[in-house]
Amino acid sequence: MQFHLNGFRPGDPHVAEASPQASPHGDAVPAQVDVLIVGCGPAGLTLATQLAAFPDIRTCIVEQKDGPLQLGQADGIACRTMEMFEAFNFSERVLKEACWINEVTFWKPDARQPAAIVRHGRVQDTEDDLSEFPHVVLNQARVHDFYLDAMRHSPSRLEPHYSRRVLDVAVDATAAADYPVTVRMERTDAAHAGQVETVRARYVVGCDGARSAVRKSIGRQLVGDSANQAWGVMDVLAVTDFPDIRYKSAVQSSRGNLLVIPREGGYLVRLYVEMDKLGEDERVASRNITVDKLIAAAQQILRPYTLEVKEVPWWSVYEIGQRICDRYDDVPEGGGAQLPRVFIAGDACHTHSPKAGQGMNFSMQDTFNLGWKLAAVLRGQCAPALLHTYSQERQPAAQELIDFDREWAKMFSDRASDGAAGGSAGVDPKEFQKYFEQHGRFTAGMGTHYRPSLVCGEATHQRLAAGFVIGTRFHSAPVVRLADARPLQLGHAGKADGRWRLYAFAGANDHRTPGAGVPGLCRFLEDSPQSPVRRYTRAGQDIDSVFDLRAIFQQSHRELAIESMPALLLPRKGRHGLQDHEKVFCPDLKHGPDIFDLRGVDRGQGVLVVVRPDQYVAHVLPLDAHQELAAFFAAFMRPN
Amino acid sequence: MQFHLNGFRPGDPHVAEASPQASPHGDAVPAQVDVLIVGCGPAGLTLATQLAAFPDIRTCIVEQKDGPLQLGQADGIACRTMEMFEAFNFSERVLKEACWINEVTFWKPDARQPAAIVRHGRVQDTEDDLSEFPHVVLNQARVHDFYLDAMRHSPSRLEPHYSRRVLDVAVDATAAADYPVTVRMERTDAAHAGQVETVRARYVVGCDGARSAVRKSIGRQLVGDSANQAWGVMDVLAVTDFPDIRYKSAVQSSRGNLLVIPREGGYLVRLYVEMDKLGEDERVASRNITVDKLIAAAQQILRPYTLEVKEVPWWSVYEIGQRICDRYDDVPEGGGAQLPRVFIAGDACHTHSPKAGQGMNFSMQDTFNLGWKLAAVLRGQCAPALLHTYSQERQPAAQELIDFDREWAKMFSDRASDGAAGGSAGVDPKEFQKYFEQHGRFTAGMGTHYRPSLVCGEATHQRLAAGFVIGTRFHSAPVVRLADARPLQLGHAGKADGRWRLYAFAGANDHRTPGAGVPGLCRFLEDSPQSPVRRYTRAGQDIDSVFDLRAIFQQSHRELAIESMPALLLPRKGRHGLQDHEKVFCPDLKHGPDIFDLRGVDRGQGVLVVVRPDQYVAHVLPLDAHQELAAFFAAFMRPN
Repeated sequence: MQFHLNGFRPGDPHVAEASPQASPHGDAVPAQVDVLIVGCGPAGLTLATQLAAFPDIRTCIVEQKDGPLQLGQADGIACRTMEMFEAFNFSERVLKEACWINEVTFWKPDARQPAAIVRHGRVQDTEDDLSEFPHVVLNQARVHDFYLDAMRHSPSRLEPHYSRRVLDVAVDATAAADYPVTVRMERTDAAHAGQVETVRARYVVGCDGARSAVRKSIGRQLVGDSANQAWGVMDVLAVTDFPDIRYKSAVQSSRGNLLVIPREGGYLVRLYVEMDKLGEDERVASRNITVDKLIAAAQQILRPYTLEVKEVPWWSVYEIGQRICDRYDDVPEGGGAQLPRVFIAGDACHTHSPKAGQGMNFSMQDTFNLGWKLAAVLRGQCAPALLHTYSQERQPAAQELIDFDREWAKMFSDRASDGAAGGSAGVDPKEFQKYFEQHGRFTAGMGTHYRPSLVCGEATHQRLAAGFVIGTRFHSAPVVRLADARPLQLGHAGKADGRWRLYAFAGANDHRTPGAGVPGLCRFLEDSPQSPVRRYTRAGQDIDSVFDLRAIFQQSHRELAIESMPALLLPRKGRHGLQDHEKVFCPDLKHGPDIFDLRGVDRGQGVLVVVRPDQYVAHVLPLDAHQELAAFFAAFMRPN
Repeated sequence: MQFHLNGFRPGDPHVAEASPQASPHGDAVPAQVDVLIVGCGPAGLTLATQLAAFPDIRTCIVEQKDGPLQLGQADGIACRTMEMFEAFNFSERVLKEACWINEVTFWKPDARQPAAIVRHGRVQDTEDDLSEFPHVVLNQARVHDFYLDAMRHSPSRLEPHYSRRVLDVAVDATAAADYPVTVRMERTDAAHAGQVETVRARYVVGCDGARSAVRKSIGRQLVGDSANQAWGVMDVLAVTDFPDIRYKSAVQSSRGNLLVIPREGGYLVRLYVEMDKLGEDERVASRNITVDKLIAAAQQILRPYTLEVKEVPWWSVYEIGQRICDRYDDVPEGGGAQLPRVFIAGDACHTHSPKAGQGMNFSMQDTFNLGWKLAAVLRGQCAPALLHTYSQERQPAAQELIDFDREWAKMFSDRASDGAAGGSAGVDPKEFQKYFEQHGRFTAGMGTHYRPSLVCGEATHQRLAAGFVIGTRFHSAPVVRLADARPLQLGHAGKADGRWRLYAFAGANDHRTPGAGVPGLCRFLEDSPQSPVRRYTRAGQDIDSVFDLRAIFQQSHRELAIESMPALLLPRKGRHGLQDHEKVFCPDLKHGPDIFDLRGVDRGQGVLVVVRPDQYVAHVLPLDAHQELAAFFAAFMRPN
C-alpha cells in the first residue's frame, strides 16, 4: 500500500481522504448522475466500488431491498475473484474469514452394498500455480460488506439508496442530451411508500437480477431451457459421521446426488440435494418442497452415515436451468453508430445452476469489465466506442459458462453407473471426477479468454511470453522489489484504479545496453511525441496516473543498482515530488523457478506485457515495438 | 477463525456478541473493578485487550492524554510481536499496512575518500524460519488503533477513559479486603478539570511510562546510567539519491552515525541521527537541538548523497540511557507470603535506546505475560501465587535486553575504525555488522528464555523436541489440517484466549497402537481422575475451554482417517453439541522438511509440548508421562 505521498496523514490509510467533489449522501437520490446502478448484488457493488474510486464521476446505486443482505445466497469465491478482491484491497479479509477449499472428494454407491456410499477419489481443488490465491467459500453477505466498506471509505464516500423499485427506464435516442437516460423509481419503505423519484443519467447499469426491470426496459430477455430437475440447497449446523464434511464432496448415491460445501467458521456446511424430477414446464414451487424433505433426502443419500441437523439458517429450492441474454446493452442488432447507454450485468443477463459456483463470480467479473470502461469514457480518456466491447467480451464468455454448466449440471443429476464397460446407464463416477479435473481452470474463473478487439491485441508476439496469454487475466508470480528486497506478487501491482499496467520484462543484458530494451522503452515513453504516456497523461497529473510502468529484470536484487535505473522507473510524484521506489523488480530466486521461467518469458529479448485496468492482458509486444504500442492505444484513447 | 458454534450469527465475526456481563462505557470511571490499567500505551493496550476477552473480569483502562495517539514514537514490530498480534487476530492488518524490513545494509567511510560513505555489507534482516512472520515497521498509533478495535469488538466492549491523571495509589496491606487497592485520579479535560475520581481495584497495573506514577506509589525506581550522547530522531518525507533509503541502513560516517528505517506507505522514512556528546549529568534539553540541526547533521553524514527534506511529521531528541527497575510488583524484598497487588510494565520498569527497536515490543510482551496470569487468578483457575512469576520472568528478560542494548548503542555511537589490525580506534564496521547478525534472534524478540518456575518445567525431556525449547515461545511450523487438507501454521492455533495448548506429536506408529501414544494420552485426559482436563474444566464449559488439545501425526492427510480419531480430538461443543474438526494435523509434505524435522521432534516416541496462554513452551514431556503432566498443573491450578 502506498500512502503519505501528499504529506503525512494520520489514521487508517484504507480510509481515503474525502474528495471535495464527493456529494454528501442524502435521503433522496440525486436528480442527475453520471452512472445509475440498479441493484446492490455482487455485480452492482463491484461496479459501484470501482466507480467510487473516481470522485469526479457522480455515481448512484439503488436497491429494492430495505438494507444490506444478511445471509444466504451465493458463497463460492473463485481464485480469479480473489485476485480481483486484491485489486479492491480486501483479499486479506476474505482469506482470513473464508473457508478454504483445498481438496474435493468423490463418492459413489458401494459396489458391495449399493445402498451405502463409498469414497472413490480425491483431487486437489486447484492445480498448483493456477493462482496465488486459493478457492474459498464465504457468505455473499460478507462480500457485500467488504464492498460497502470500500465504497464508504473511498474518496467518493459512496453509499447505496435502499428501498427503491425501478418503474421505467427511458433513453433519449437523439443522443444530443447530456443525460439521455431517465429512470423513474418508486420508494418502497413505509415512510416514503409510493413516492416517485426521477433520475437522469448518462449511463444506467441494470444489476437487478434475473427478473431485471432494466433488462425488460431495453426489450431484452433471457433465453434458455430448464432440465426439469428440482434441487434443494440448505446451510446447516449439523452433527455427522460422514468423514468428508469439511471437504467439498460430490456424492453420487443410489438414492440421488448431493454436494457438500464446507462453510466459513468451522461448523457451517452447505448441502445441495437432488430432489424431484419435474414435469415439462413445471415450476419447482408446485412441489411444496419443505426443509424437512431436504433434510430427509440428504440423510438418505449419505447413508450409511448419519446426519443430525441442529439448525438451518437458510434454505431454498430451485430448478436447474441455463438462460442467457444475447446482448448486454441497448444497442439494437445492426445498430451501427449507436452508442450504448444502458447495460445489464450479472443475473440480469445469465442464470445457471449454482453448483459450479459461478454465479456470483461471473457477475462480478461482468462489472469489473464494464467499470473501468465507463470510467475511462466519462473521464474523457477513451472514446465511447470502447463501451461496445463490454457486451462483445462478456456475452460470449457467459455463453461458454452456460455450455459448461449445462453439461456439469446434467452429470450432477445423473445416476452413477457402475463404471464397467457395457454397465448400467448414467454417468461413470470416474468420468465425473475427470470432467471436474479437466474444467478446474474454468471453475477457478480462469476460463475467460477475450478475443482480439479494440482493447485486446493480436497474438503476433505471444511467443515472447507464453504464460501471459492475450485476452486472459495477467497471471501473477513472485518477485522481489529492488528498492527494499521485499518479496511480493507482481500481479498485486494491479489495483482497481483505472490505470493500465505496462510490465516490461528486461532481456538478459538489457540493463547494460542503453537505448535498447527497457531503457529504450523508457526513453520512448518519456520523450517521443508518439508516447502514450505523453499523449494521454494530462498536465498536473502524476506521470504514472494513466500508465503504470513496472520493470522486471533477470538479475537478483543484490546485482542491480537502483541508482542506474531510468528516471521513469523512479518517478517523482505528488505535492512534494517524492520518488516512487516501487517500480522495479527482480526475480525471486529463493523459491523454485523464477517469474521468467514460470511464465515463459523470452530471456534473450524480454517482452512488454500490457495489462488492462481489469487485470486482463491486452497485448504482448517486443520491448522495442514502440510504434505498435502507440498505435494500440491510439485506436481507442483520446489525446489531451 | 471459528464462529457460528452456538448458532448462525450474521455480520462481522470479528465483532463478538456483547456479553450480558459487559458494562456500558460511561463518562465516569467505575467505582470498583477487578483490574485498573493506568496508561494506553502498547503495554496497557495489550493487557486491556487480553482482559477484554473475559467479560467476567471487570477491567478499566485510563490514560492521561485526551485521546488516542495520532503519530510518532515507536515503529519497529519484531517477528515475535507479529506472532502475538496473530493471537490477537490482527496480524494480517499489520502485515498489509506495515513496511517490511527484509535486508539491512551497512555503510562506512570510503577508504579512498573518507568524507564520503560507501556500502560495505548487506545481510538478510531475519534468518530463515526464525518466524513465519517478517520484521515490520508501523506507526505505534496504528498498533494502538488495532488494539482499540479489538477491545471495542470484544465481548466486554472495553474502551479507555482518557484525561485521567493518577494522584495516588494505596494498598490495604491487611489483604482481607476484596478490593485492596485504592486509586485516586484527577480529570484533566476542560469540562471536568480538577474533579477527583476514586477507583477500588483488586489489581492495578501501571503502564504509565518512564515517569510512572504507579511505580512511584510502590516506592520503586528506575536505576541505570546514561551514555551522555544526544541523538535526534525524525520521520521525514524527503528526496534523496541515497540508494538504500528503503532499506534499514546503518551508516557510520566520519562525521557521525545515522540509522535509516524505511516506513509504511512507501515514502516515509525515519532517521536516527547522532548529535552532540553531552557532559556528565547534562540533559539533552540543554542543547536546544532544533529539527534544522537534525536535518543538517543527516545531510552531512549521508554525503556524497543528497537529502532534501520536504516534510517532518514528527521529530524528537533524546539521550541514550539504560535504566531498569529491580522488581515489577509491590511485594517487598523478602516479602514472604505477601501477594502482589500492584504491577508495573513497559517503560515504567525499563527504558533503553530506541535503535534496537525493542521498547514497544518488550513492553507488549511484559503485559502479554501478565494478562493471562491475572485472568487465571481472577477467574479462580489458578492460585494467586502464580502472580509472582510475572516479575520473576520479565525482570531478568529486561536485564538481558538492557545489557544487549548498552553494547549495541555504544557501537552505534562509536566512530568507524578502518578495520585494519592496529588501525584507528573505534568500532570495526565488520565487527558492527557481525554483532548485528549475531543478535538477530534477540532483536526479533526471540531472545527471551524463561527459567524453570511454577509455569515452566525442567528440561528433563527436552531432547524429544529440540526445537520447542522450554521457556521460549512455541516456534510455529507449517502443517496440513486433517479434516479439510488446509495448509496452515500450527502455532496460529494459539490465540490470546487464556487457554493452554497441548500439542501432542504422535510417534511413527502411534495411530496403530491403541492405548499408547496419542490415543493413550486422550484416554488419560478423558477418563482419569488425575486428568487436568477433568480436574480444571468446569461443568457446562466446553471440553477444550481450559486445555486445547491438538494432535499432529506423521502420516499425510490422505493416509489418515478422521473417523478413527479419539473422541477428544473431535470434541462436541457449544449449544448444539457440534463437532470441532480442527484439532488434528498432518505434516505439510509439499514444501521441504516437515514439522517433525524442522523442530527436531523424536519420530519414534513423539512428544507432548505444553504451551502457555502467552505462547511460551511450559513443558516438554513424553506422551505417556501422564503423572508428570498432572503434577505440573496441580502445582498452580485450582481444582473445581
